[in-house]
Amino acid sequence: MGRVKLEISISLDGYVAGPSPTLEQPLGEGGEQLHEWTIRLAGWREAHGLTGGESGPEDDRARARIEATGAVVMGRRMFSGGEGPWQDDPNMDGWWGDEPPFHVPVFILTHHPREPVVKQGGTTFTFVTDGIESALEQARDAAGAKDILVAGGAMAAQESLQAGLLDSIQLHVAPVFLGGGVRLFDGIPSGGLELVKAYESLGVAHLEYRVAADRQTGGTS
Amino acid sequence: MGRVKLEISISLDGYVAGPSPTLEQPLGEGGEQLHEWTIRLAGWREAHGLTGGESGPEDDRARARIEATGAVVMGRRMFSGGEGPWQDDPNMDGWWGDEPPFHVPVFILTHHPREPVVKQGGTTFTFVTDGIESALEQARDAAGAKDILVAGGAMAAQESLQAGLLDSIQLHVAPVFLGGGVRLFDGIPSGGLELVKAYESLGVAHLEYRVAADRQTGGTS
Repeated sequence: MGRVKLEISISLDGYVAGPSPTLEQPLGEGGEQLHEWTIRLAGWREAHGLTGGESGPEDDRARARIEATGAVVMGRRMFSGGEGPWQDDPNMDGWWGDEPPFHVPVFILTHHPREPVVKQGGTTFTFVTDGIESALEQARDAAGAKDILVAGGAMAAQESLQAGLLDSIQLHVAPVFLGGGVRLFDGIPSGGLELVKAYESLGVAHLEYRVAADRQTGGTS
Repeated sequence: MGRVKLEISISLDGYVAGPSPTLEQPLGEGGEQLHEWTIRLAGWREAHGLTGGESGPEDDRARARIEATGAVVMGRRMFSGGEGPWQDDPNMDGWWGDEPPFHVPVFILTHHPREPVVKQGGTTFTFVTDGIESALEQARDAAGAKDILVAGGAMAAQESLQAGLLDSIQLHVAPVFLGGGVRLFDGIPSGGLELVKAYESLGVAHLEYRVAADRQTGGTS
């Protein structure tokens, strides 16, 4: 059975988005810096319908993660592009365009029920109103033997971690301070993880953790 | 001239101490977990007058850092062992015992003037009431060609970073959540650092950053 993985880029001061997000700048002030390393990768660009980019070991790893992913779970903010009145617009398809980069079923945590949206290139958006456990259950059915990616934002990450539903956490720590915004780890109950590996690549620190069995209550392994 | 280095252990959620510190538990609830990796090292144990411990590459690196350090700057809380009424006691020598592990001049940031304290084994405690720049200046004089270690806590780290006085930052990220306490990076102005290296050792992620010249206003390099 596939594993449930949180993968997310954070700042040195622990933010996944900077202050004052807008529809034009959904990651807040400076937030785009968190993702500069990944935008350089050929595999990421390919998934986004772009050409060019760098190959090499980090690109290989990124491609392998994409290939291993059978379904994605994300929060409403990540779907709709930041916090704002537009995010309750039932016709809002998110800021992911006509051919989103996921190419697999995506489950959106929201309080607003709506019909699924089928996009080009294999991405479907399904809206889940009954919580993270339900979203992960649906994602697991969709993913088959592949992994389920919890892609953010902070609330989806915190909920899945606190509910004991994660098998692993992959953090990409960008070498920037955002000085404010949305913190990834806020109010997480105390306890330990197991560091599997840590390395530098493209100027970013990549940290991979296994979630200890005693943090897992959801029977995900 | 020696370089000014911040070196500090933090939790995955960014804390340097857990919640509810007491004199008996100056690092707060769970805070001692941040330092378990270093207590295992033979070089650390030797500096603390203890025997045993592990040798190997991380021990070599820890010994090299100790050897390169000519003076230490720390905050009042780190000197006195957490926040509490005892920390204003003029007879309080800190919780570092008769032979503290520093073996070099230590400069304590405080609002309470007092006479220097000379300890066994080369450690002197000098109390600095006129701020971080003065403390670093005195430390630089004392260190000669060696490095100056900013050892914490969070306020000393933030003040030295914000005043542009650091050359490098070495973070040891312990694989634990403390769930609350004192955050290392809080209210840091936005901006970038340069990641020099990242690696795993003893279950901890070690991240080393160079502080970009444009963050440095103190002319420390």
